[in-house]
Amino acid sequence: MAETSMEQLVSLCKRRGFVFPSSEIYGGFAAIYDYGHYGALLKNNIRDAWWKHMVQWREDILGLDSAIFMHPTTWVASGHVGSFDDPQIDCRTCKNRFRADHVLESYGIEADKVPIETINAELERLRHEKKLVCQVCGSKDLTSAKQFSLMVKSNLGSPTNELSEENVVYLRPETCGGIYLQYKNTMDALHPKLPFGMAQIGKAFRNEIVARQFVFRTREFEQMEMQYFHHPSMTKALYENWRATRWEWYKAIGVPEQKIRWHKHEKLAHYASEAHDIEYNFASLGGFKEIEGVHARGDWDLAQHAKFSGADLSYFEETTKERFVPHIVETSVGLNRLFLMCIDLAYTEEDVDGETRVVLKFPHALAPVKVAVFPLLKNKPELVVQARNVYVDLRKQFLCEFDDHGNIGKRYRRQDEIGTPFCITVDFDTLTDQTVTVRDRDTMKQERIALSELISYLNQKLCLLS
Amino acid sequence: MAETSMEQLVSLCKRRGFVFPSSEIYGGFAAIYDYGHYGALLKNNIRDAWWKHMVQWREDILGLDSAIFMHPTTWVASGHVGSFDDPQIDCRTCKNRFRADHVLESYGIEADKVPIETINAELERLRHEKKLVCQVCGSKDLTSAKQFSLMVKSNLGSPTNELSEENVVYLRPETCGGIYLQYKNTMDALHPKLPFGMAQIGKAFRNEIVARQFVFRTREFEQMEMQYFHHPSMTKALYENWRATRWEWYKAIGVPEQKIRWHKHEKLAHYASEAHDIEYNFASLGGFKEIEGVHARGDWDLAQHAKFSGADLSYFEETTKERFVPHIVETSVGLNRLFLMCIDLAYTEEDVDGETRVVLKFPHALAPVKVAVFPLLKNKPELVVQARNVYVDLRKQFLCEFDDHGNIGKRYRRQDEIGTPFCITVDFDTLTDQTVTVRDRDTMKQERIALSELISYLNQKLCLLS
Repeated sequence: MAETSMEQLVSLCKRRGFVFPSSEIYGGFAAIYDYGHYGALLKNNIRDAWWKHMVQWREDILGLDSAIFMHPTTWVASGHVGSFDDPQIDCRTCKNRFRADHVLESYGIEADKVPIETINAELERLRHEKKLVCQVCGSKDLTSAKQFSLMVKSNLGSPTNELSEENVVYLRPETCGGIYLQYKNTMDALHPKLPFGMAQIGKAFRNEIVARQFVFRTREFEQMEMQYFHHPSMTKALYENWRATRWEWYKAIGVPEQKIRWHKHEKLAHYASEAHDIEYNFASLGGFKEIEGVHARGDWDLAQHAKFSGADLSYFEETTKERFVPHIVETSVGLNRLFLMCIDLAYTEEDVDGETRVVLKFPHALAPVKVAVFPLLKNKPELVVQARNVYVDLRKQFLCEFDDHGNIGKRYRRQDEIGTPFCITVDFDTLTDQTVTVRDRDTMKQERIALSELISYLNQKLCLLS
Repeated sequence: MAETSMEQLVSLCKRRGFVFPSSEIYGGFAAIYDYGHYGALLKNNIRDAWWKHMVQWREDILGLDSAIFMHPTTWVASGHVGSFDDPQIDCRTCKNRFRADHVLESYGIEADKVPIETINAELERLRHEKKLVCQVCGSKDLTSAKQFSLMVKSNLGSPTNELSEENVVYLRPETCGGIYLQYKNTMDALHPKLPFGMAQIGKAFRNEIVARQFVFRTREFEQMEMQYFHHPSMTKALYENWRATRWEWYKAIGVPEQKIRWHKHEKLAHYASEAHDIEYNFASLGGFKEIEGVHARGDWDLAQHAKFSGADLSYFEETTKERFVPHIVETSVGLNRLFLMCIDLAYTEEDVDGETRVVLKFPHALAPVKVAVFPLLKNKPELVVQARNVYVDLRKQFLCEFDDHGNIGKRYRRQDEIGTPFCITVDFDTLTDQTVTVRDRDTMKQERIALSELISYLNQKLCLLS
């Protein structure tokens, strides 16, 4: 089977209401996307699966939902205001903007995290060799590289309606900042003992210079982050433990192990002692790309915020009478990247009797719609009434659809394209023997199930609790 | 019993980890709040109850999750850029800012939605009579009133790192804008027939001039909005239907009818034909305050966006061969206000044997933690092991806590303060007869329940499905 292309996914996502370009009627808005009905349902299911594993099923992790807006000093202390930037170059002809390091990489020159001077020296060399051209329009009129801050500035509560640099507040570039700032209040209110974690899900914003990667890299996105506070002597063991835990989570939500791998960071941030990413092999992006980071961050975050705020963020261990600033192991994953991973993983084209069947083979727990209910015929009221009873009964527990348009074959295809695991048909036999046909999305096999057994059958098949 | 004061709620919310002031270690950030562990759990439960009633249990409503950032023209078309503002006055002495209409109202002068000239004339009269003083510092040095835009400006993708008015993008002041912009894509992808609705939950931002009202009015907040598209001939019937539906929802989540009422708008927006608010009687805010609006908005929203974008947002009704722009009935509720409503409604102080018991009597479905499990004694491994087995079994389904600190009485009080409906104690009898004590939060009554019956007992009592 041919590899799935990004065009196929983007097209399906728009056609079936998973993802729409933002503000399309106004000509669009680059690198921002909206999630339609099925997209919102899928994204919520991924979100809830993470939250359940991270908060509900663990007693050592507390939830948090901190605001997007924080005191501006937060981002000075974290180092983001000073040095959270990417090198950019602009094309003076077509006005497109590019990541300078990515441009160099397209010429086979490794430029990840190298100084801006090095980037410009390499660009100058290419320019001199007459090789440097705009990847969009072919022009040779490109600027030199300069640093471009990824921080999105806003104004809040400013004394006038005009924007002003003195009143800048930043939209958070990552959600973990809120966790560090509420570490103390959380300790004071809930008194957790080390080691423990704090988890949150929320929006973050980066002024990215974006190539076309659909929802993989956007300027507004959602993160799911967990910071695990502990005594430094435990870092090594906890770090390996968290790597194993997160790996298991991917298996639990249905990702085959051969589709993911670890990437070990060779260049570590100055505060980090270990950093690995989980990469997923995106058919649609042509290979392995980062979806999650598991990083040992030391005491850097709490120490910086203690220093800039003057707050005491140390912990007193009663058993050893030791006072110290907790160290952190972080797990951080992009919800929108997981969303793309799920679509990429699920998208399947199959030949069925000479016709192409497009089917999204989502893991059952993540499927936006769990069950569809059909009356065999639309114009037989006794079938419609019975089918609606089944539907109304099931939707109390499962996200369900009722469909009586067109023939059964077409209804199956529609549900296949949105990844519904089970389709139930009420037919004339149902009226006499109280059984229905249940059709499996993946095998396309059908079985007769008694109405009285239906909920327990679906509960067992859907495995929503595991 | 004395009325619950805001101070009591704010104190409980911080002490028990429901709500923390944002950025407190940096001196705080006005009118922004973070939700701690129990707060995040409670807020998620309210969110999910709305989504379940609005999307899962209805076949005529589709979900959406649109981005916060939208094309700037969106907010010109909607009228927000031109006229979404409040009159402000500043105190030159203490630098505090006030809503000029609220200042006038404190002198008994009705000033809701009156022209700025009228406000200034009234202020001038008070100044002349030497009555106008700053409510904070008592100074008479107050500015005259001027309009202050509620729109929060950001910069995104600007060509430099400096803020610029040409590159302004607004943070959405309400979530419904995203629904209007994705109306067309939704129609094209899912082909719903009129009438149908689109629902979404998300953050919105307003540069509010804020008095101290805790999470009732904040500059960053969450809305849950639903726009119901229909033929204009149906507006009257649908409007009454939606009023009834939303009223029933409050009853379904456990709000007594005597705590809510309808407020009919006398001054309607120019496009509206009907507008009612649901008001809840906040003990902590001293009376009835708006929590939800149900508004008949006509075709104004889609017509404006069609006009500004050039997109065809009309609908063709096949049965009547009529083409028209759908009209809208909107229901819009503030999630953070519902959160405060839940805390306000639940907060109870009771005298129990001469001591004050603080208990949050949340409706079961909304309680952050459903069940707590205790071993009677911490130092009896056989009890601890059995209690942990019960806990691990229950938390698959319910948000649970395990607690072995202090005596049972203290554990009950801790769970009372976070509103946990049921506490389960494993004692020596459990080891022989496989029963546990289940204690009810509200009645404080205890019963013995067989372990084998526990899950069905809790499922029935918690009524999580209704």
